[in-house]
Amino acid sequence: MILYAKRIVTPKGVIEGYIHIKDGKIVDITDTCDEEFIDYRDQILMPGYIDIHTHGWATGSYWMEKTAKSIWDMQRHLPKCGVTSFLATTGTDSIDETFRYIEAANEAYANQHEGAELLGIHMEGPFISKEFKGLQKEEHCLTPDVKLMEQFYNAQTNKEMIKLMTLAPELDHAKELIQFNCAHGIQNSIGHSGATFEDIKTLKNDGLGGVTHMFSGMRGFHHRELGVAGSALYFNDLMCEFAKQSGMTVKHEAFDIVYRLKGDNGVYLTTDCQGLAKTQTPFHHYIRKETFEPDGDMLKITSDDGNVRIIDPNDYEAVKDIEIGYDTSVRNMLKHTPMNLVSLSKLTSLNPATYIHMDDVKGSIEIHKDADIIVLDDEYHIIETYCKGNASINL
Amino acid sequence: MILYAKRIVTPKGVIEGYIHIKDGKIVDITDTCDEEFIDYRDQILMPGYIDIHTHGWATGSYWMEKTAKSIWDMQRHLPKCGVTSFLATTGTDSIDETFRYIEAANEAYANQHEGAELLGIHMEGPFISKEFKGLQKEEHCLTPDVKLMEQFYNAQTNKEMIKLMTLAPELDHAKELIQFNCAHGIQNSIGHSGATFEDIKTLKNDGLGGVTHMFSGMRGFHHRELGVAGSALYFNDLMCEFAKQSGMTVKHEAFDIVYRLKGDNGVYLTTDCQGLAKTQTPFHHYIRKETFEPDGDMLKITSDDGNVRIIDPNDYEAVKDIEIGYDTSVRNMLKHTPMNLVSLSKLTSLNPATYIHMDDVKGSIEIHKDADIIVLDDEYHIIETYCKGNASINL
Repeated sequence: MILYAKRIVTPKGVIEGYIHIKDGKIVDITDTCDEEFIDYRDQILMPGYIDIHTHGWATGSYWMEKTAKSIWDMQRHLPKCGVTSFLATTGTDSIDETFRYIEAANEAYANQHEGAELLGIHMEGPFISKEFKGLQKEEHCLTPDVKLMEQFYNAQTNKEMIKLMTLAPELDHAKELIQFNCAHGIQNSIGHSGATFEDIKTLKNDGLGGVTHMFSGMRGFHHRELGVAGSALYFNDLMCEFAKQSGMTVKHEAFDIVYRLKGDNGVYLTTDCQGLAKTQTPFHHYIRKETFEPDGDMLKITSDDGNVRIIDPNDYEAVKDIEIGYDTSVRNMLKHTPMNLVSLSKLTSLNPATYIHMDDVKGSIEIHKDADIIVLDDEYHIIETYCKGNASINL
Repeated sequence: MILYAKRIVTPKGVIEGYIHIKDGKIVDITDTCDEEFIDYRDQILMPGYIDIHTHGWATGSYWMEKTAKSIWDMQRHLPKCGVTSFLATTGTDSIDETFRYIEAANEAYANQHEGAELLGIHMEGPFISKEFKGLQKEEHCLTPDVKLMEQFYNAQTNKEMIKLMTLAPELDHAKELIQFNCAHGIQNSIGHSGATFEDIKTLKNDGLGGVTHMFSGMRGFHHRELGVAGSALYFNDLMCEFAKQSGMTVKHEAFDIVYRLKGDNGVYLTTDCQGLAKTQTPFHHYIRKETFEPDGDMLKITSDDGNVRIIDPNDYEAVKDIEIGYDTSVRNMLKHTPMNLVSLSKLTSLNPATYIHMDDVKGSIEIHKDADIIVLDDEYHIIETYCKGNASINL
């Protein structure tokens, strides 16, 4: 298969050309072409979005359901938002439930379905701070325990599945945990953490790569105690994850300040979506000011001011607007922080791929990489999504 | 008089040359010279430091004494720290005492003494927020009153003397005050203020130029309410004043973040020194954890842990180390944020001159400007200070 466009976004710039795809890989990019091709002359070809912090999307919630099926549902629907690969992200839960997360992911990782590729899992906890727990469960926040981490690691069928862990480096024994992860190819992000600047300065070189959902669930910036947020601003080699850009949890101007400071190599975008449609027990979302709860086979959403909606949690059209998806988040960001296409592709694709050490096969439109390509119109709406060369927007 | 150096810091770069000085002005800068010259071949020639926020220095405290003599004492001793011109800065006090400030400055402004030039005054208040008063007197913080401001303005003998005012733009009637100042050549700085991002966004174009002592006495940065600090970071056209760099009130890393973001056109340095030796009534400095009080003709300093020192407030050598002077502040900053000489000269000289609309005669080593020149060694110690061409370090 060959895709043609006047605007193909590559790390070296935006070029006109023909992308040759074979067996799911980009095998060549040429200036001319004698064969049949799909003509996207008026569209933009970008590397697919890589969401390394998503708990669930639309009809699937790995966070709530902890099943392989929940991941398969995510695989099917994420391409509609331009996402071509992702890390299914756990929540902080009991040790037993954490093993359930790993078992569910083992099954889905070994039996990938059509759509967005499951790159592995991101463990958000359980080694996080109770004080900065945010939406995580306080009773399951644990002191770092490298023996327990080793058990989680050994529970993986494929030892490369756990790609990323969010943890609080100020907790006792965090150093051993960080070092263990680092030695086993697991990236460490600081999150749900009250770490001070000194904590982070001390442990950074043991293997701290960046921060999870910048500004949220962390000690904020102060001019006499820089905290997690200030450390992320200060240290050039810490990456900043920004969860979905709604302007609600983090003002667009705050994002803009960080982007100006860190540049397009220091920031990546995720959604931190939860798959709220698949809420299992009544869940009050304090930021959204809504309670989600099952109602037979349906989902009941009650806002704090008393309004009630009942929707079918398995109907994509009914649930797709409960949360802001990746493509909407990108469009929101670009309204306030315009950037060129190459920079955008770093924030959405190359940087997250690099962060989890997968930039050899993911994150950019280059020869030998996977053919994860999205087709965008000039307003950044998704026209088509190719996951390893397969058109996947209508799965 | 002609000064020669291999390193003369000009806005266009560091050059080797001969600076020709006549009647206090730089009249030429040449590559060669047949006349007699002072040889500074191993030193650096920089524009003199301009301190637009200093209440007092060493044996003179405009803040505490409110006399022409206090300003003359500052003029005499500031060149020892490399300062060649300054704004004597008021404190927030009663209306009567505020008029006393203006009268004292009228006398000194019309009868300039040797040494650092009095460029005018900086009024820190009285239109500031009680909530963010810092060391200012709460009982004298006033709601903006343009009629009163007009009286202050009219109390000046020379209507160009008030150059800068620190005010809180969130207070009622601030808009009229800002507009009045702007129309009368008085720069407006946001300080001692709880203004929100929206307050500042709304009033910025009415004439807000920047912020006073960045991070101190203001609503700090938060990712959902950017406050004064976040607004200063976000808006490229707001200048950030940083008071003396001790690392005590603002961590050096916090300064560094702001410098990286704003660049060398967006930051200037001041000392915010108070002339503590001339304390008139017992004064507890909560940041320094010391109480200053007169003891007959002497000064008694009692630290919170009970240590007592008694010194002569008129002995420069005895009092010069009570506070950190401009040159020490510069050296402290450079230890944590190294920068080239041209950038340094912007932070210390050109930016403050531009901010108070005096860059036609001050702020850089250029033909037609005043010969305010400091001679530095490689560790940024002051070897000599020329104020309008007069060697002034030993006044």
